[in-house]
Amino acid sequence: MEYRKIKDEDNDGGTISDDIENLRGKGLLGVASVSNVPATEQAKWKRKTVVTLALTFLTSSQAILIVWSKRAGKYEYSVTTANFLVETLKCALSLAALARIWKTEGVTEDNRLSTTLDEVIVYPIPAVLYLVKNLLQYYIFAYVDAPGYQILKNLNIISTGVLYRIILKKKLSEIQWAAFILLCAGCTTAQLNSRSDRVLQTPLQGWIMAIVMALLSGFAGVYTEAIIKKRPSRNINVQNFWLYIFGMAFNAVAILIQDFDAVMNKGFFHGYSIITTLMILNHALSGIAVSMVMKYADNIVKVYSTSVAMLLTAVVSVFLFGFHLTLAFFLGAIVVSVSVYLHSAGKLQR
Amino acid sequence: MEYRKIKDEDNDGGTISDDIENLRGKGLLGVASVSNVPATEQAKWKRKTVVTLALTFLTSSQAILIVWSKRAGKYEYSVTTANFLVETLKCALSLAALARIWKTEGVTEDNRLSTTLDEVIVYPIPAVLYLVKNLLQYYIFAYVDAPGYQILKNLNIISTGVLYRIILKKKLSEIQWAAFILLCAGCTTAQLNSRSDRVLQTPLQGWIMAIVMALLSGFAGVYTEAIIKKRPSRNINVQNFWLYIFGMAFNAVAILIQDFDAVMNKGFFHGYSIITTLMILNHALSGIAVSMVMKYADNIVKVYSTSVAMLLTAVVSVFLFGFHLTLAFFLGAIVVSVSVYLHSAGKLQR
Repeated sequence: MEYRKIKDEDNDGGTISDDIENLRGKGLLGVASVSNVPATEQAKWKRKTVVTLALTFLTSSQAILIVWSKRAGKYEYSVTTANFLVETLKCALSLAALARIWKTEGVTEDNRLSTTLDEVIVYPIPAVLYLVKNLLQYYIFAYVDAPGYQILKNLNIISTGVLYRIILKKKLSEIQWAAFILLCAGCTTAQLNSRSDRVLQTPLQGWIMAIVMALLSGFAGVYTEAIIKKRPSRNINVQNFWLYIFGMAFNAVAILIQDFDAVMNKGFFHGYSIITTLMILNHALSGIAVSMVMKYADNIVKVYSTSVAMLLTAVVSVFLFGFHLTLAFFLGAIVVSVSVYLHSAGKLQR
Repeated sequence: MEYRKIKDEDNDGGTISDDIENLRGKGLLGVASVSNVPATEQAKWKRKTVVTLALTFLTSSQAILIVWSKRAGKYEYSVTTANFLVETLKCALSLAALARIWKTEGVTEDNRLSTTLDEVIVYPIPAVLYLVKNLLQYYIFAYVDAPGYQILKNLNIISTGVLYRIILKKKLSEIQWAAFILLCAGCTTAQLNSRSDRVLQTPLQGWIMAIVMALLSGFAGVYTEAIIKKRPSRNINVQNFWLYIFGMAFNAVAILIQDFDAVMNKGFFHGYSIITTLMILNHALSGIAVSMVMKYADNIVKVYSTSVAMLLTAVVSVFLFGFHLTLAFFLGAIVVSVSVYLHSAGKLQR
């Protein structure tokens, strides 16, 4: 439960960052700004692929860490301190990346840390949206059980697509829309088990909450992309730094409200283990990867990336934990694979 | 079990025919042969739609009759006599359609009943293929249970697509191939139940037999299309008449071998009921519809038609028999619907 909370937040791109990887991206972009030759396109495509693969890898290893931690037993650390550390680590990584850039390129209009109220005022909005969504999460369990909630979370895929179209005004081809519906159906199919049918008995309030949560989560993701892409030349590490500063602030408040006594009595790091440390590291890197996908690709790529990660996790779990794959999983995996193909085939035909 | 045997045969297009519907088609085709105006295309498209809808309707009502007959109890008629009557009825309907055509158009080279050995020699081949397939069907149950066999039968979809490409040398676009894979995955998903995972434990022999059966069934369907389309101007009723004559002959032999004693002692129509009669009528009309789809559309359309019929049957069964639809059914239905859309979208973009 505790682990899922962190997971949901990061998977949805609640907190966003960039890192040293960006240095390479920046170098390539230097060529891009000079001339519009195919080499630029190739470099962009390469960077997009690298960040997408990184996100896929990090998301699936994240899920595996969760299973591992569950098997190892319950951890008694406070979630708020872990979330705070994740934000702090992302901030630190952004600053480290910026320091290297300043050394090589000097401080410019695009990479200076100082900002204007006009630029920074929208940055806390995604964090607030996730906060509302996470609050709702406690109430939805009155209507749906945990496996049912996992099924309903696939509505995020549809809401992200719809809001991506409405808010960012980017068009998907009809084939790509079809692919997106398939992605949602395929992911849900892959997660089917003998008790999944219970989700059909969800009362109306449960459905409404699930849809509202999907819309909040989709809106937060799309809004983050809008913020980051609003100034394409602005260095991503600066954008991330400001996003994460608000993340740190929100989580600091959460520590004070929820876990002040525990931290005071047992210490900030009480209950931490190697797995906790690995998970914090993983969440920080995943957050950075989400942010880079937002900058150099988009929310659609992010959704595909995390969906494929879900399938990879299941396959890896067969070897690591002796899980059994169901027929439904294979069918869902086929549908998701076809969806990935159609997404790119649909793009080419535009 | 007995009913399924008839069903498999007809669903797979084991026996083929045409009927009075063709008169209208022929009338429209009269215009078509004069000029190649868009009106011709429209008429062709209309005829294709009518036969496809007829096949979908007949196939789904066929499945509903099967459920109804199962509920009503076991019927003690002999399957061979019922199959024989189906073939006879199709022959009679073909002759009746021909008689009307001869009256209006006179006897021509294309609609005369007499034939050459060269034309007719290939006609028994599909019947032989189905015979082999139906024999194999008894052996596969040593390795797979009945629900598992229903799941494995979806391999027919893939085999039909592959053989359609290889034998008829007709190309499908990449999008259409993707749609075809989705159709197979979607149909299987819609049929999932709590015991479906057992099919994954099927031994190698079972898989091999299932694949061989799928290939036989796909080959028979594609081969029938090849026969019927080899002479496009030849009247479909004549082609059907010869196909069904062999069907009658094969089934007459089957009566002699399997049910000679029962027929002699209890009579030809022993155990017949209203449902038996309705099913024979339905099978005859379905066979005719399959044949018309082969002539005016193709095996791909036939596969889509019977897949959509499977979904329709399930929905209608909710109202008729109080069946419950599963989440897997809804997901499968979404995937099949997207597949139908992609099949036509993929065609337009060629």
